[in-house]
Amino acid sequence: MALSPAFSEIIDNAIKAIHARTFFAQYPEHPKAYAEDATARGQGAFEKQRGHKFEELLQSNPVSWVGEEVSPYLSEPLNITYPTFEVDTLIVRAGRAMEQWRKVTPEDRAEVLVDALERVKNRFFEIAFATQHTTGQSFMMSFQASGPHANDRALEALAIGYQEVTRFPAHITWEKPMGKTSLKIEKSYKAVPKGIGLVIGCSTFPTWNSVPGLFATLITGNSAIVKPHPKSIYPIAVVVAEIQNALKEKGYDTNICQLAVDSSDSLITKKLAEHELVKLIDYTGGSAFGNYIEALPGKTSFTEKAGVNSVIIDSVVDLKPVVQNLSFAASLYSGQMCTAPQNFFIPATGIKTAEGTVSYEDTVKALTDAFSGLAAHPQMAPGTLGAIQNELTVKRVNSVKDIEATVLVQPTTVANPEFPNARICSPIVLEVESKDFGIYENELFGPIVIIIKTKNTAESIHLAKEMAAKHGAITCAAYTTSDEVAAQIEEEMETAFTPVSFNFTGGIFVNQHATFSDFHVTGGNPAGNASFANPEYVNKRFVWVGHRKNVG
Amino acid sequence: MALSPAFSEIIDNAIKAIHARTFFAQYPEHPKAYAEDATARGQGAFEKQRGHKFEELLQSNPVSWVGEEVSPYLSEPLNITYPTFEVDTLIVRAGRAMEQWRKVTPEDRAEVLVDALERVKNRFFEIAFATQHTTGQSFMMSFQASGPHANDRALEALAIGYQEVTRFPAHITWEKPMGKTSLKIEKSYKAVPKGIGLVIGCSTFPTWNSVPGLFATLITGNSAIVKPHPKSIYPIAVVVAEIQNALKEKGYDTNICQLAVDSSDSLITKKLAEHELVKLIDYTGGSAFGNYIEALPGKTSFTEKAGVNSVIIDSVVDLKPVVQNLSFAASLYSGQMCTAPQNFFIPATGIKTAEGTVSYEDTVKALTDAFSGLAAHPQMAPGTLGAIQNELTVKRVNSVKDIEATVLVQPTTVANPEFPNARICSPIVLEVESKDFGIYENELFGPIVIIIKTKNTAESIHLAKEMAAKHGAITCAAYTTSDEVAAQIEEEMETAFTPVSFNFTGGIFVNQHATFSDFHVTGGNPAGNASFANPEYVNKRFVWVGHRKNVG
Repeated sequence: MALSPAFSEIIDNAIKAIHARTFFAQYPEHPKAYAEDATARGQGAFEKQRGHKFEELLQSNPVSWVGEEVSPYLSEPLNITYPTFEVDTLIVRAGRAMEQWRKVTPEDRAEVLVDALERVKNRFFEIAFATQHTTGQSFMMSFQASGPHANDRALEALAIGYQEVTRFPAHITWEKPMGKTSLKIEKSYKAVPKGIGLVIGCSTFPTWNSVPGLFATLITGNSAIVKPHPKSIYPIAVVVAEIQNALKEKGYDTNICQLAVDSSDSLITKKLAEHELVKLIDYTGGSAFGNYIEALPGKTSFTEKAGVNSVIIDSVVDLKPVVQNLSFAASLYSGQMCTAPQNFFIPATGIKTAEGTVSYEDTVKALTDAFSGLAAHPQMAPGTLGAIQNELTVKRVNSVKDIEATVLVQPTTVANPEFPNARICSPIVLEVESKDFGIYENELFGPIVIIIKTKNTAESIHLAKEMAAKHGAITCAAYTTSDEVAAQIEEEMETAFTPVSFNFTGGIFVNQHATFSDFHVTGGNPAGNASFANPEYVNKRFVWVGHRKNVG
Repeated sequence: MALSPAFSEIIDNAIKAIHARTFFAQYPEHPKAYAEDATARGQGAFEKQRGHKFEELLQSNPVSWVGEEVSPYLSEPLNITYPTFEVDTLIVRAGRAMEQWRKVTPEDRAEVLVDALERVKNRFFEIAFATQHTTGQSFMMSFQASGPHANDRALEALAIGYQEVTRFPAHITWEKPMGKTSLKIEKSYKAVPKGIGLVIGCSTFPTWNSVPGLFATLITGNSAIVKPHPKSIYPIAVVVAEIQNALKEKGYDTNICQLAVDSSDSLITKKLAEHELVKLIDYTGGSAFGNYIEALPGKTSFTEKAGVNSVIIDSVVDLKPVVQNLSFAASLYSGQMCTAPQNFFIPATGIKTAEGTVSYEDTVKALTDAFSGLAAHPQMAPGTLGAIQNELTVKRVNSVKDIEATVLVQPTTVANPEFPNARICSPIVLEVESKDFGIYENELFGPIVIIIKTKNTAESIHLAKEMAAKHGAITCAAYTTSDEVAAQIEEEMETAFTPVSFNFTGGIFVNQHATFSDFHVTGGNPAGNASFANPEYVNKRFVWVGHRKNVG
């Protein structure tokens, strides 16, 4: 069956965008692009859900209802509970559902999944409030990251997955000329799904980081079990519910995509991950658990773990827009983005600008002033910083003060008039010497920025590369006016498979990875083994099997 | 630089063939398609090489010269020696060469590699003699498998690799509309090679099984070290020498592709495989060493290991062409092909034919008569069976007589008038009950066929699937006149990611995997984790890295 026109157009456009890599967005990122009352209706739905069971899932006979989400803005529990199921129940249902789903054509699968995205679109504002009050992201980031950006990332994975599973013909007649006669064989090619896919979510980006793997797993014919972080379930629960609605609409088993909720005191992740019928695992989170996932025998894993993102400052035209850009990038969502810069390498010899060399000290001062200024800005600070998802992050900020480093900027109290009880913490800025790699070689998750005084740019590059190769990196920001230095940085960071963003100022930030254009995580260093969404991201979820029949 | 017309046409045709999967061959498989005196010249070159150093490699300062190849046809050593190098020398040279090769455009790499294939083409007949006298394959199989078929497989990997590394644009301008203005970023995308690739060869198919990985590694910008089996070096040594000639012609470092010879009493494979700069490993051979390769941390591996290939006989139109086809398939090169059928599942209830049901006993008799007849046929037997590469294989055949199974056909003495000293062993055919899986569940490499009496076809399917899932399978042959049974076999074998060939008779054999059409090994069961040449086969050899520059 051919894709119905509207659906096929969405898929076709996405495939084109993926290969052109120019700007494209299926889902507009501006709230104003949606209905005028959409915010109010989203908020209404969110408020109505608070204090109640989440009863939208089409998964029968739960064994209990649990929930422990706490709003970082309100500092009070949401009191939403979700159904839980035995691991064996989840697996049996996923296995049975997959027997149906694997036989559904890629076209029909794509139609269901695009329909699911369209349904999710109608829930963007509710998902935004759900994200804000579980992750601590600002409303705007919550809307964009968990709404249109997540949907676009899901569409990207879906589209490239669709392209790959339909890459070779379903049937051909192979005819080999043999002089006067020929040999004829009927051949069929099938993209056979590997098995049940487990998608393990994180607490800071509950949909953006999970939907690419989820849609990649589903389009390639596997069934999926989504295991969200116990502290951020609501946003992805809505997505799973809408996938189930789309499946139901077409008469498919809704267990093709299940939500598997657990609680912090009784986690089921390992039991699911180690189950022999689980063949695919998508994971976002800390490195220790990620390394465990990658080492599980017999699994194909797709991980995004911790990384140490560097900033190399060599030379600039004008320092001011640079420090403004960087302080914003590092302050955004209080450094809780996997793409946030942490290590700022600045040469002791200072940096060249259009107006002469600025000393190391003055460069550092310009940078720290920008951080302090942003944190002190009553209009900008609350929306930029958002709130801190996990109180351990605040503790980490406070404990780094005790390490042997100079504290250049103290975290300050930032008031959010809308949410007086919000857990807010502006970035702490530390200064160390390049020899103190024990301090800066690991990811210090949250609003922690380290300025590292290096001998020169060559040392900056060397250290940034070393950190990326040994500890992983998702991004690297570099500032240089020299083409030669730029080429050198590119080449060196490529050996650690780390993308470099040069001379970002104004409204372009190193944190932002655009769907259809920027690969997110390269998969080539310890920050993760997967990349949204390169061809490998979908190809590894199925196996090409070719059958042959004698035509006689 | 664009591909020069002739080269680009070869690549384009190959890419088209890969996606059409209909019959295509760049290199004709008939010796007659080549010059009239090609056989004589090839034999002359082979005879001239015997007893001498192989001095064609462009690798300087060897530490010693070794060689232990013995002709299975002559039962005497070839007395050819090859240069050896310290592992550290090989790695340092590969690393330095890669610094150059990674910067070469995919177009220029493709041009060198197609040129190498054209040079190898001029050596097809010498390679054929080299293959015959190291592997024991018949001359015709040696010519086809190591010559045109190997070249086509190399071209296939090269073409799909070229397509994948050029899949995304090298440069774009990304422009995001922002109301009245827009954000602009220059972006570049690079397929960054993972690192040094090690290609570990086997003794039975020294080029066919090695060149796909070798060309996949090279087209994606990695340097390669080819470590052949000490008993079969000559054929791949010629290929490596011609790759080096093609590199030299264009002024590239010839160490981009090196031959790493060792000897049975001083193997260097593990030292190479475990070296931290070796990132890619292609391997063909036994399962124990293959499992070790797959488990090495930090490596991307592509393996083809042992498998147990099944034949399911349910129903046929006419039994005679079936047993003829199967006895030939299992006798060809004395079962030393990874695709050779081993386990024949036949139901105790007999099989339906157009002329009524043939009893189990009569079916077995028809099959064993076909094996005996072929082995006794003075014209057909020598060319079909070839010779036995390794004397351990003959020992295995003799030792299986001692297991608790009925010997239905004894291996017989087969005379090869051309080579009176050839090591020849016709297939032994054993009969066991389905409960005796201890006997048939592992690959018994060589001319060993096991007939397994099952309750019915359902049990045959179940056992074939179990064997494939647990012990691996590269092929499955099935005979049924029922569409329903065929669908059931397909579905069941797909769960073990095993391709099924139905009702092959006449000149079509289950052993043969056609380049550009049949994926060789699916990568989905324990017979190996790689597939010649699905997109994953090349995608996993490099990493997409995207850099961004502010246009300002």
